[in-house]
Amino acid sequence: MKKTTKEALRREIRETVRLVREKNPLTPSITNTVTINLVANAQLAVGGSAAMVYLADEGEGMASLGGAMYINMGTILPVYAETLPRTVKVLTELGKPWVIDPVGIGVGALRTSLLLGFQTDKPTIIRGNASEIIALAELWELDNGRTMSGVRGVDSTDSVETARTAAISLARHTGGAVAVSGPVDLVTDGKSLAWVEGGSKFLPMITGAGCSLGGVAAVYACVASPFVAALTATAIYDFAGTKAEQRAEGPASFQVAFLDALYQATPEDVGAQPFTLEVIGK
Amino acid sequence: MKKTTKEALRREIRETVRLVREKNPLTPSITNTVTINLVANAQLAVGGSAAMVYLADEGEGMASLGGAMYINMGTILPVYAETLPRTVKVLTELGKPWVIDPVGIGVGALRTSLLLGFQTDKPTIIRGNASEIIALAELWELDNGRTMSGVRGVDSTDSVETARTAAISLARHTGGAVAVSGPVDLVTDGKSLAWVEGGSKFLPMITGAGCSLGGVAAVYACVASPFVAALTATAIYDFAGTKAEQRAEGPASFQVAFLDALYQATPEDVGAQPFTLEVIGK
Amino acid sequence: MKKTTKEALRREIRETVRLVREKNPLTPSITNTVTINLVANAQLAVGGSAAMVYLADEGEGMASLGGAMYINMGTILPVYAETLPRTVKVLTELGKPWVIDPVGIGVGALRTSLLLGFQTDKPTIIRGNASEIIALAELWELDNGRTMSGVRGVDSTDSVETARTAAISLARHTGGAVAVSGPVDLVTDGKSLAWVEGGSKFLPMITGAGCSLGGVAAVYACVASPFVAALTATAIYDFAGTKAEQRAEGPASFQVAFLDALYQATPEDVGAQPFTLEVIGK
Repeated sequence: MKKTTKEALRREIRETVRLVREKNPLTPSITNTVTINLVANAQLAVGGSAAMVYLADEGEGMASLGGAMYINMGTILPVYAETLPRTVKVLTELGKPWVIDPVGIGVGALRTSLLLGFQTDKPTIIRGNASEIIALAELWELDNGRTMSGVRGVDSTDSVETARTAAISLARHTGGAVAVSGPVDLVTDGKSLAWVEGGSKFLPMITGAGCSLGGVAAVYACVASPFVAALTATAIYDFAGTKAEQRAEGPASFQVAFLDALYQATPEDVGAQPFTLEVIGK
Repeated sequence: MKKTTKEALRREIRETVRLVREKNPLTPSITNTVTINLVANAQLAVGGSAAMVYLADEGEGMASLGGAMYINMGTILPVYAETLPRTVKVLTELGKPWVIDPVGIGVGALRTSLLLGFQTDKPTIIRGNASEIIALAELWELDNGRTMSGVRGVDSTDSVETARTAAISLARHTGGAVAVSGPVDLVTDGKSLAWVEGGSKFLPMITGAGCSLGGVAAVYACVASPFVAALTATAIYDFAGTKAEQRAEGPASFQVAFLDALYQATPEDVGAQPFTLEVIGK
Repeated sequence: MKKTTKEALRREIRETVRLVREKNPLTPSITNTVTINLVANAQLAVGGSAAMVYLADEGEGMASLGGAMYINMGTILPVYAETLPRTVKVLTELGKPWVIDPVGIGVGALRTSLLLGFQTDKPTIIRGNASEIIALAELWELDNGRTMSGVRGVDSTDSVETARTAAISLARHTGGAVAVSGPVDLVTDGKSLAWVEGGSKFLPMITGAGCSLGGVAAVYACVASPFVAALTATAIYDFAGTKAEQRAEGPASFQVAFLDALYQATPEDVGAQPFTLEVIGK
């Protein structure tokens, strides 16, 4: 039974990679200025089309034009107070999938207020490191499996395993998927947990590895379910990370090889990425 | 006669490449946050000097200090409502060349309003993909050669050939030049059309290929006529694209090789880039 | 005596490189959008942790969370009028080190007003090219060793040697350190001058070489004195620049090799970088 489900997932992953390369879906973003270039290039490398905006009416327009949207909370600007709620409103009205990346959770009043608002809006996919996922469950007063998160700036000080309960709680709350990045990555829809292996020691050493994974998950969400989209994004990152590390001499040559590997990855490559499936039911 | 003109153009291209490397002209930009780094590095690679600003009085200051200016409409911010008109006013008063890149045309009220204003200001060079060029001619109610543009986000869904009429109309309206990027690139001053070959399949796969071409055209506009500046920028991009593709394994290694190739390109390399010249008179 | 001091400095440089790799200190930045990605990646490459913000309360929060902070005046936004003074106030109250990079000095009213305010706040480390350092001493009405600076946009038109007096004046005014980038780099605390050799012809050809050096100096300031932090950052840049140039074919392959070299550099590598020490007393 478990094996069948895993085989079914592998088929869906392959189909997702293939469909995106075929359809080139427009996947707009509202994202931070640090890693905005990498997000766009990663989205292009897997076959998507990227477009970034800041203004409220442009967020609405892009929500309407795109197949899905990526929203990243790093380096928020004053205009976000208006742009994010209006954009998310259109996404919700149109039933478009969207990915939220709660970068910097806990820092600043506007970020906190916006993230609180998303509790009701229910993002389709939540992507973060372990500390961010625990902190978001905490902010939303869901079961986070512990009493205090270890967010420090933008880095995680918690292991992925400790974010297990928080990830499940968040996925059950939104009805979507949650992807937690770390040495082993976790993707869950609240009913199943996929633990994906691979990646590279260099991934945490390039700024935007996580952000661009979120952007790629949004691309895949244009053509797949939230869980499959998050899983496919995680699998292609783990595949490309392992491949790129073999050719890298440091983080910068790694980043070049990594983007090239995202571009070269075939449906079969991504579908074959090792993962463990744990079905927990509801 | 036609042959002579082509030879004359080749001479001017070589001279433009050479002069920029000699004079290192300051070419400020107001440009989007996605590709701002690539724009600056491409400008440096061809021998220019880059400086980016957002505030209105800084735009005015830079318009005054620079030899030409690059204005890109991607990721506009609220402050652009003040910055762009004031900057363009100084550019116009001082008779400085400026390049406009109508990225995202059709999305948002502020972008549309600013682009409408530029109809009177008459940018020296307009650079875009085919869909953007057609959409701008449409917005300005010039003959665009068709009834509806195919802009979708930031990508073109039209071929360069279909933008021919729009490009000519825009060039005749501004009295400057228009550069249309695509599989074969088109540059026109409304009297002649140069169709430039070369480039790479990877150019549309790195974000900012077009933006940085606009930034480089502005650098060349510091020392050459609008038509020659746009043509030289297009030619060096086609030369470097072809050269870089030979060494690339994907879009990221392509981008590295491409910037290196921009840096290495000699006046002779760029002057020898194949193009077809079509003289249509006025 | 001089030799002993130099040996002592080499020991401190090695210890600084080592400590940062061990402690991974959080070093937030408020920095320009052109080079923000390179600043973050350079900070990560030497072992620091990066986090960038724009909003006032986030600047305050980061000043409190970080070990030191990097503030760069390029591409300032309207919100900086509030963010920078409030952030610097917290840094000052908590006695946290901070690095200022006066990019674009002389352009725009807000930048001038903010830089004037920093005269009282006294940044721990001031980093710039020769023209910027002279212009800042001029703005603060300190002895700048000459009558007019040669800032033009963001590039220097003065030699490092001509910034000697200005650098000493600034360091004596703040009680911290000043780092001047150029063919030979100068670092001073107002009592000693270290002239550091190395680097690469490609460093001025990649945008953000100077900005990221400032960001790295802030990382080192988390664990070392202002003078040693500025010197260590300068030394690792000179080491990595020389190493990277051997593998580079142009500015883009240089940047990749440079970041890799920052990552690979050992305490011994950096401690062995050649420099001349000149003790001028007070």
